[in-house]
Amino acid sequence: MELSDAREVTREDGEPLLLYVLDGLGGLPGPDGEATALEAADTPNLDDLVRRGGCGLHDPVAPGVTPGSGPGHLALFGYDPLRYRIGRGVLEGLGVGFDLEPGDVAARGNFCTLDAEGRVADRRAGRIETEPARRLAERLDGIELPGTRVFVRIVKEHRFLLVLRPDGELSPDVDDTDPGQTGLEPRPPMPGSEAAELTAELVRRWLEAARSELRGEDPANGVLLRGFSSLPDWPRFPEVWRLRPLAVAAYPMYRGVARLVGMEAVEAPDAPSELPAVVREHAGEHDFVFAHVKGTDRAGEDGDFDRRVAVLEEADAVLPELASAVGGVTLVTGDHSTPAALRSHSWHPVPFALAGGRGYRASGVRRFGESECRQGTLGWRRGCELMPLAMSHAGRMAKFGA
Amino acid sequence: MELSDAREVTREDGEPLLLYVLDGLGGLPGPDGEATALEAADTPNLDDLVRRGGCGLHDPVAPGVTPGSGPGHLALFGYDPLRYRIGRGVLEGLGVGFDLEPGDVAARGNFCTLDAEGRVADRRAGRIETEPARRLAERLDGIELPGTRVFVRIVKEHRFLLVLRPDGELSPDVDDTDPGQTGLEPRPPMPGSEAAELTAELVRRWLEAARSELRGEDPANGVLLRGFSSLPDWPRFPEVWRLRPLAVAAYPMYRGVARLVGMEAVEAPDAPSELPAVVREHAGEHDFVFAHVKGTDRAGEDGDFDRRVAVLEEADAVLPELASAVGGVTLVTGDHSTPAALRSHSWHPVPFALAGGRGYRASGVRRFGESECRQGTLGWRRGCELMPLAMSHAGRMAKFGA
Repeated sequence: MELSDAREVTREDGEPLLLYVLDGLGGLPGPDGEATALEAADTPNLDDLVRRGGCGLHDPVAPGVTPGSGPGHLALFGYDPLRYRIGRGVLEGLGVGFDLEPGDVAARGNFCTLDAEGRVADRRAGRIETEPARRLAERLDGIELPGTRVFVRIVKEHRFLLVLRPDGELSPDVDDTDPGQTGLEPRPPMPGSEAAELTAELVRRWLEAARSELRGEDPANGVLLRGFSSLPDWPRFPEVWRLRPLAVAAYPMYRGVARLVGMEAVEAPDAPSELPAVVREHAGEHDFVFAHVKGTDRAGEDGDFDRRVAVLEEADAVLPELASAVGGVTLVTGDHSTPAALRSHSWHPVPFALAGGRGYRASGVRRFGESECRQGTLGWRRGCELMPLAMSHAGRMAKFGA
Repeated sequence: MELSDAREVTREDGEPLLLYVLDGLGGLPGPDGEATALEAADTPNLDDLVRRGGCGLHDPVAPGVTPGSGPGHLALFGYDPLRYRIGRGVLEGLGVGFDLEPGDVAARGNFCTLDAEGRVADRRAGRIETEPARRLAERLDGIELPGTRVFVRIVKEHRFLLVLRPDGELSPDVDDTDPGQTGLEPRPPMPGSEAAELTAELVRRWLEAARSELRGEDPANGVLLRGFSSLPDWPRFPEVWRLRPLAVAAYPMYRGVARLVGMEAVEAPDAPSELPAVVREHAGEHDFVFAHVKGTDRAGEDGDFDRRVAVLEEADAVLPELASAVGGVTLVTGDHSTPAALRSHSWHPVPFALAGGRGYRASGVRRFGESECRQGTLGWRRGCELMPLAMSHAGRMAKFGA
């Protein structure tokens, strides 16, 4: 269902909703070759959710596709990530918590090493460390352009964010300058349309200034830019779903994606045990709360199965408090899988559990786990189909087509 | 699969098909907290279907979406209801059995109450009863417009149907006059495009005449119009599926939706037990029969679990006679769920059973019910995917792509 279709049937009354995201929730069998971290963990509150309500699996983007954090969360907010694409520059901005404004043009930058002939010798400047790279970024942040404010922010290691904030209007339709391989010169910034000619000219001038600023540096004597983009003009979450949404997350990326669709966002400490207090403090007039736990994903990326189990148990322990702070319907899931066995995001479907509100069919499922969710009455869905499902259980959707 | 894709592979030979729709078939657990009405009912013939053939679940429109009757049936006829949208005016026309012709412009009307300043005080005229509203509708039916016939038909209570039948051509692209809330004046009928200027002018004149006709009435001294629409120009069922279809239903709405896609439609008494005789009488040259049972939905809307069980048993009892009157493949399902527990249409997936023809995989499923169908070999589908499935079992689909 398109968001415009959803907009036709959503209602302002009904129950509130909690979306509790355990980042990278889905996993693969651990040491015993059978149970995933979720299946090995002792999670009485998640199990209770499954028994009172229902469960299922979802593919955040599409079957076989490994989601990044941005698309994974967009899907949970009801936005089909294959249709709603976030530009690379904007994504970096969200990741570092830069307060992008409508009309800003953002790009992802790499410090690189150029050889004596000006060709790219290393696209990542020997993966320069963050601190020396930060000092270079601060120098580039001082470059001035006519009629446009310029911001440069370090992301991590060789990665930085470039933002142009024009007095007037700028199109982000400029091609990457990164040639994508070594042995070639950086490309000039080419406008993809007439509207982007001024942007390309400003970027060309900025690149000249950056090159002279970095002359003689080693290894980072050049820069490459890609993913020129602006904040998208999408249907806003509060209007589509007729909800007053609040995001609570420790990391800028997740607050950023939430703000991108029109949520209010507040920072929380990293530990799940700190979430209920923050949610209670800010929930106020909100009838939708997205609360984010990062530790599940981090333990997966670190290949630490036992820590994944421990974080899942900690996340489970605070669920009753969180759910009672919001009331109504509770949806617990992840934005993608991060099996410890793979030490990375993966394409595997993600378990979800839904309870509260009304209208669940009986199921024999007793535990919240990957295998059990395959038998769940809520089915195997695409990630963006979970919002309509939760909304209906909350009594917030009218009939389609009378 | 798009209808244009289906058209490429359908064949004129093969077995006939019966689509037996038990309206609002899907349910939720009843008094015992476990069994739905379908699971509680004694349905030996439906169970036999599942054992001989296969079963599954379908989402008529999309996951989490509660279908209206129109979209639910379109899906069963193979039309994706998110793509094939029926205008509100046309839907009302189908509902009252008005014989809409191509080029007619139909709108849904409300009798309303206007205050002394001409603002809407009640959008439904105090939910005026049907009989006094009918007398008002008959007076409005007498209004004349140049070059255009005008029809007004009562629907129920404050609801009526307005149809303009022009000598020439009229575009239905006119905005609603219903402001959607009280305290505002009705909007003038604004054309959405140049082609609709004449329609808007005719509607404006009709509204003037209606207002003077209703002057002094209490509570219905005004009218609001919305959902201006014409019969859609869609691929026709007989051409897409290469079938000669017959619809048999007691209610105008279902015959109307069937006619909308090009089916021949006949009226039947309300009781399932009367269906086989009507089907036998009219089946003749038809190789597709859509037979409709309303009582399952009605019992659900009334919150009457026991009556749902009784109607399901009655519908089950006549299945063998119906199936033998048509021969070939039998598909039994609903257009949506109507759990007695919710007293309304709902978003829950609907069970379906398919038998006859050829090509079923073995399944351990012994009963036709919501839980059992989740384990069925025919899977969990979108509603519009059932027609291709049934067609293939009937030997009526050739290879796609040779």
